[in-house]
Amino acid sequence: MQTAAILIIGNEMLSGRTRDLNLQTLGTALAEHGIRVRESRVVEDRFDSIVQAVNSLRATYDLVFTTGGIGPTHDDITTDCIAAALGRVVVENPEAVRRLTAYYPHGDLNQARLKMARIVVGAELLDNPVSAAPGYRVENVFVLPGVPRILQSMLPGLLARLHRGTAILSRSVTAYLRESEIAAELEGIQLRYPMLDLGSYPFVRDGRFGTTLVARGTAVEALASAIDEIAQTLAVRNAEFVVESTASPL
Amino acid sequence: MQTAAILIIGNEMLSGRTRDLNLQTLGTALAEHGIRVRESRVVEDRFDSIVQAVNSLRATYDLVFTTGGIGPTHDDITTDCIAAALGRVVVENPEAVRRLTAYYPHGDLNQARLKMARIVVGAELLDNPVSAAPGYRVENVFVLPGVPRILQSMLPGLLARLHRGTAILSRSVTAYLRESEIAAELEGIQLRYPMLDLGSYPFVRDGRFGTTLVARGTAVEALASAIDEIAQTLAVRNAEFVVESTASPL
Repeated sequence: MQTAAILIIGNEMLSGRTRDLNLQTLGTALAEHGIRVRESRVVEDRFDSIVQAVNSLRATYDLVFTTGGIGPTHDDITTDCIAAALGRVVVENPEAVRRLTAYYPHGDLNQARLKMARIVVGAELLDNPVSAAPGYRVENVFVLPGVPRILQSMLPGLLARLHRGTAILSRSVTAYLRESEIAAELEGIQLRYPMLDLGSYPFVRDGRFGTTLVARGTAVEALASAIDEIAQTLAVRNAEFVVESTASPL
Repeated sequence: MQTAAILIIGNEMLSGRTRDLNLQTLGTALAEHGIRVRESRVVEDRFDSIVQAVNSLRATYDLVFTTGGIGPTHDDITTDCIAAALGRVVVENPEAVRRLTAYYPHGDLNQARLKMARIVVGAELLDNPVSAAPGYRVENVFVLPGVPRILQSMLPGLLARLHRGTAILSRSVTAYLRESEIAAELEGIQLRYPMLDLGSYPFVRDGRFGTTLVARGTAVEALASAIDEIAQTLAVRNAEFVVESTASPL
């Protein structure tokens, strides 16, 4: 299975100003496509931080997806960082210029906007149906925008370029009991299903403690069978629980 | 100014199942406390991944905060990973046992729950007002739970142990214009205020493109003055804009 990392670029996610939405969007879409996201990093808009993260991640995982920092303002430095990380230069990409020219009203393609046509040499453009400025792929790095709505609009075009693997599915059971009450049994089930990842996610809701038990993997029958074992364990305890009935790609 | 990194531990944030809330909570609280979060990572519940991230981050930043993986189930391996990263052993902490004994009904402190009293040797406990199981500090690493409500309840106790620096404040202006229309002026303002970070965050709302311009730093007068310059630039453009009137710690 292909592995991936997601690099989120921007001070605003670290200062608390903005809650990142893109990790969940990409994680969900890639799992469904059969690609496992193994790591994510958030770094500031600083040249050295971005270059170092790109180089570390692209050497470790099959695919790297970056979000943010490809707009027209002074704090948009992702393209220069990707170029430095890959030892490539940045050029004004003629096809990107054409798309921006077609998108903006005649005469409105100012210097700041033209900055969005500066692309790492050798890159393949990714379509942006919302605001024209393209993302791109160069080697195993996919460079995407940070605005969630624009990123979402680019997903179909992005996924079409990625090799589709076996979808990673999950099934879950939510029960109103504390995870410590079922920890021993859950560990036993995990040992019997080494091909799955079993996770236990406690929550507090309206003052009640509960736990969502999640089985995740590509083996559909093992998933069903592990979830049955979990449900039986809960039934024996007389716990109130709900089984998510269909395998979902989450 | 002290620097910090936040390490979020858990498959569920990478698979798309769960949207992390803790980075924003910690980023906001630490900025207000005068500590700058410079990086965040999300890693899977895998021994090697966690150990490597802990060691990389604690060598680079003054403080490291981990979230997740300190519960009672088989996938809670953070404490063993912290111990390995720091070359320390894990012990059953008597004070943690005392807290758990006091919290659970008599006789309910089972083996899974006792796992939450396994703490890296030499650690200082952090109070958990919701569910007793403590977090802890060892060297420059702060080990916190993943459940957002529990983490939030631990913040006052956590912050009381951290040196308070000069609060990082921000002011912002939101305008219905595209960031490319003000990029050149914004860069000029950034150059005149090198002590501040100026950020430009485009958005799409009800089909309209807008931009939030944020100035961030510890210099209160420079903040006010930079925001004035941004507002004047927008007024000259006849742009519709709103200035956030008070310096906030976001």
